[in-house]
Amino acid sequence: MLKNNGAGQKLTHKEYRSAVKDLEKQLAELQRKIIETELPVLIVFEGWSASGKGACISRILYPLDPRYFSVYTLSKIPEDVAMRPFLWNYWIKTPSKGRISIFDKSWHRLILPEQQEIRRLSHDEKKNFYYDTESFESQLTEDGTLIIKFFLHVSKSEQKKRFDALTSDSDTKWRVNKNDMLQNKNYDDSLKHFENMLKKSNFKFSGWNIINSDDINYAAAEIYKIIIDRIKTAISKKTAGTPIKEAPAVLKNNTAQPRLGSVDLNAGITKSEYETQLRHYQKKLAHTGYKLYVKRRPVIIVYEGWDSAGKGGNIRRLTQELDPRGYEVTPIAAPTREELSHHYLWRFWRAVPKNGHTAIFDRSWYGRVLVERVEGFCTEEQWRRAYKEINDMEAHLYNHGAVIFKFWLHIDKDEQLSRFRSREADPSKQYKMTDEDWRNREKWDEYEKAVNDMLEFTSTEYAPWTVVESCDKRYARIKTLKIVSDTLEEKLK
Amino acid sequence: MLKNNGAGQKLTHKEYRSAVKDLEKQLAELQRKIIETELPVLIVFEGWSASGKGACISRILYPLDPRYFSVYTLSKIPEDVAMRPFLWNYWIKTPSKGRISIFDKSWHRLILPEQQEIRRLSHDEKKNFYYDTESFESQLTEDGTLIIKFFLHVSKSEQKKRFDALTSDSDTKWRVNKNDMLQNKNYDDSLKHFENMLKKSNFKFSGWNIINSDDINYAAAEIYKIIIDRIKTAISKKTAGTPIKEAPAVLKNNTAQPRLGSVDLNAGITKSEYETQLRHYQKKLAHTGYKLYVKRRPVIIVYEGWDSAGKGGNIRRLTQELDPRGYEVTPIAAPTREELSHHYLWRFWRAVPKNGHTAIFDRSWYGRVLVERVEGFCTEEQWRRAYKEINDMEAHLYNHGAVIFKFWLHIDKDEQLSRFRSREADPSKQYKMTDEDWRNREKWDEYEKAVNDMLEFTSTEYAPWTVVESCDKRYARIKTLKIVSDTLEEKLK
Repeated sequence: MLKNNGAGQKLTHKEYRSAVKDLEKQLAELQRKIIETELPVLIVFEGWSASGKGACISRILYPLDPRYFSVYTLSKIPEDVAMRPFLWNYWIKTPSKGRISIFDKSWHRLILPEQQEIRRLSHDEKKNFYYDTESFESQLTEDGTLIIKFFLHVSKSEQKKRFDALTSDSDTKWRVNKNDMLQNKNYDDSLKHFENMLKKSNFKFSGWNIINSDDINYAAAEIYKIIIDRIKTAISKKTAGTPIKEAPAVLKNNTAQPRLGSVDLNAGITKSEYETQLRHYQKKLAHTGYKLYVKRRPVIIVYEGWDSAGKGGNIRRLTQELDPRGYEVTPIAAPTREELSHHYLWRFWRAVPKNGHTAIFDRSWYGRVLVERVEGFCTEEQWRRAYKEINDMEAHLYNHGAVIFKFWLHIDKDEQLSRFRSREADPSKQYKMTDEDWRNREKWDEYEKAVNDMLEFTSTEYAPWTVVESCDKRYARIKTLKIVSDTLEEKLK
Repeated sequence: MLKNNGAGQKLTHKEYRSAVKDLEKQLAELQRKIIETELPVLIVFEGWSASGKGACISRILYPLDPRYFSVYTLSKIPEDVAMRPFLWNYWIKTPSKGRISIFDKSWHRLILPEQQEIRRLSHDEKKNFYYDTESFESQLTEDGTLIIKFFLHVSKSEQKKRFDALTSDSDTKWRVNKNDMLQNKNYDDSLKHFENMLKKSNFKFSGWNIINSDDINYAAAEIYKIIIDRIKTAISKKTAGTPIKEAPAVLKNNTAQPRLGSVDLNAGITKSEYETQLRHYQKKLAHTGYKLYVKRRPVIIVYEGWDSAGKGGNIRRLTQELDPRGYEVTPIAAPTREELSHHYLWRFWRAVPKNGHTAIFDRSWYGRVLVERVEGFCTEEQWRRAYKEINDMEAHLYNHGAVIFKFWLHIDKDEQLSRFRSREADPSKQYKMTDEDWRNREKWDEYEKAVNDMLEFTSTEYAPWTVVESCDKRYARIKTLKIVSDTLEEKLK
């Protein structure tokens, strides 16, 4: 893959200038179209050390309006990044509509043996690496992001020459480190690893452009042409209107599925029993919290449920005895303007907890297959696709070591009616009621169908759903507390 | 200040429970009112090591809904925090409307000698420490945030007892470090420093509550009472309606003031001269960029100007030869819902650059005294107050080592009209024109007055304004490039 690829082609600086003069203008013009058509563009630069990634990026930026691009240099992995699932750092930097994000180095290198000291992947992360990165690139693409990937290739001798030039100047010496030198020394090994990575991540929707970079002028001119070509195609596709995609068939799921109808809503607990158990499980959970921290395991707890099912009170009982420095509760409301300009999962990726921490979501990414589906805020194709996207995201978190809980707080229609009425009668609770609650209630049957689909298609072994009988709120609180504390105790053994 | 303060008072656990039972209910009720009335609440916990800050915070949180509070433990200072002005870390964590932020440790400790190894302040930062923190607390208060500050005081013997208990248990041993032990050994020195800090930061709008914490039960009950009392007062003030505050007189400013009228809009440059100088100054700036990085100086460049004055093109020429990893351009649009729920400066604090990096703002915090003033998006009292708030923020950045540039791109009314018309005639530029541009133009005179006031009241020695003659765009580009590159060269000598 990396051999004889345009080798030997060269451009003088003058030839380069004349070759790109028109391309620069075209790219500037295309950037305006990108803004107009709200196209998100992600350009990835990978390649050998000293292959000229920085120089090529600078050349590409030259004609661009800097208000609408961001460049990320992703070689150093800061501590807070290393403490999260490896895709996190890239997800949160994906471009919003109309912007260009340029990644100087990317997720692709994390699988290379020489990178393992920068960012160690767990056994499961390595095993699922290509599945996860394909899912990531595919999700972005399906959401409308244009991904362009470049691999800059230099020969062993050219690389050596560049290292020598850099190290002979005291101003640039610091730019070459031991690993770089090692890469040159073990060039053939690295070549093999690069080729393997390139082959396995050469996805049909985001294939690699391999650029011979022995001559930077030649490389930069090639990159210009490819970028312009790809953006033009993407824009004309976009302005031609999105073809109606067929909704993918939903996943077959072999895990035992919970169903709304399968629980007994009469389940209850006496007040004194409740108080004893509450103390018991809260204490137990507080103790596990400490172990979580020591063992650096992240925990993710999702709360979904009918309006007035008691999510707030349930969450409060769960967190009450926890060390407040170890958890965060994120209430999910309608997306903001900024959130709407990204992939719908972007805002949830931003809230992914660090190792040793717990993130609790009061409503979650499941909004895609619940409210967005029922209210028509997304297309059928989008919500059908979401089941796999969500399962993939949760698998990625799980492979990183996260323990995932998902609770559906379940009540019946009568119970909801009586809660709505008592809220309206109580001045201190009126603020909880809005017209929307009544409107949602009218769509009970549609929501019920959506919930059952969600339970069926997203209850996995690694991230199972639990339907929590919540007509008796106390019973519901003890049930979630018990599940969380027992499971964590088991997992942290 | 720290002597004989309730010393000796104790509560058994049973007495504590009975003391706070009602207080917990009250606090839960008050939190609902905080959400309803959109009151931001910031509670700061300071005090001796092992004075029980964590325990007191947990007790206060017990009755609260965790979806509406955040707890920040601010003892460790990560690298990216240390590379920014010291208030940055606290500004970006200030609560939004209706939320409670709890700071476990705060900015107050940064001035203590024993903290200097965690976060070294520069000479200028130390000198201005109390001025800057008073300005911070005052700005938040004036914006409607309730600040409650607690200092937890323990005696030398009680502290020693707690350290001994912690270190004798292998589970808790790690919680005591060398500095903690040193604090106990040099208790009297620390006492002196604490007292000095408490006295100097005991502002009338955010005074200290000193809590004797030799007995945690007693301390927690005291804290409950104070928090409830302060929140009640704040809510009743808020619901009574904001009293119309007198607009503060604007600042007298002794720096030589640029004025719109003082520049010659006929200034121009030939095309060939432009190209020579462009190359020269771009190269010069690229070279300084490298030095900035090595010397770790942050740079902030503000662009303001009339619609169509050429901000975008000017910024592009400034950044074209810069290393894209070293700068970021932030275009400022109307604030998002999230931004509106914070102090107006919050979103700009979030964009403060790291040492060695450059932040360029296409429009900025000056919106407060320009568009918000003219369009009535804030009150007169608010925009009048803003001059000092902005000067204080810029002084804080300057004291940290930032080099600040502020450019007003100036054209006259005729030039704007001809640019608007040519934009409307050019299909590739139509996207730049909106009805708003025409509406703003109708208010030219009001804007002119606002601009001149801004130039007069916010041009300081440490952050001067430059009016840039922009009828000839090329002239304007060279002028900003020259000022930035010459000034940086001078400052980085």
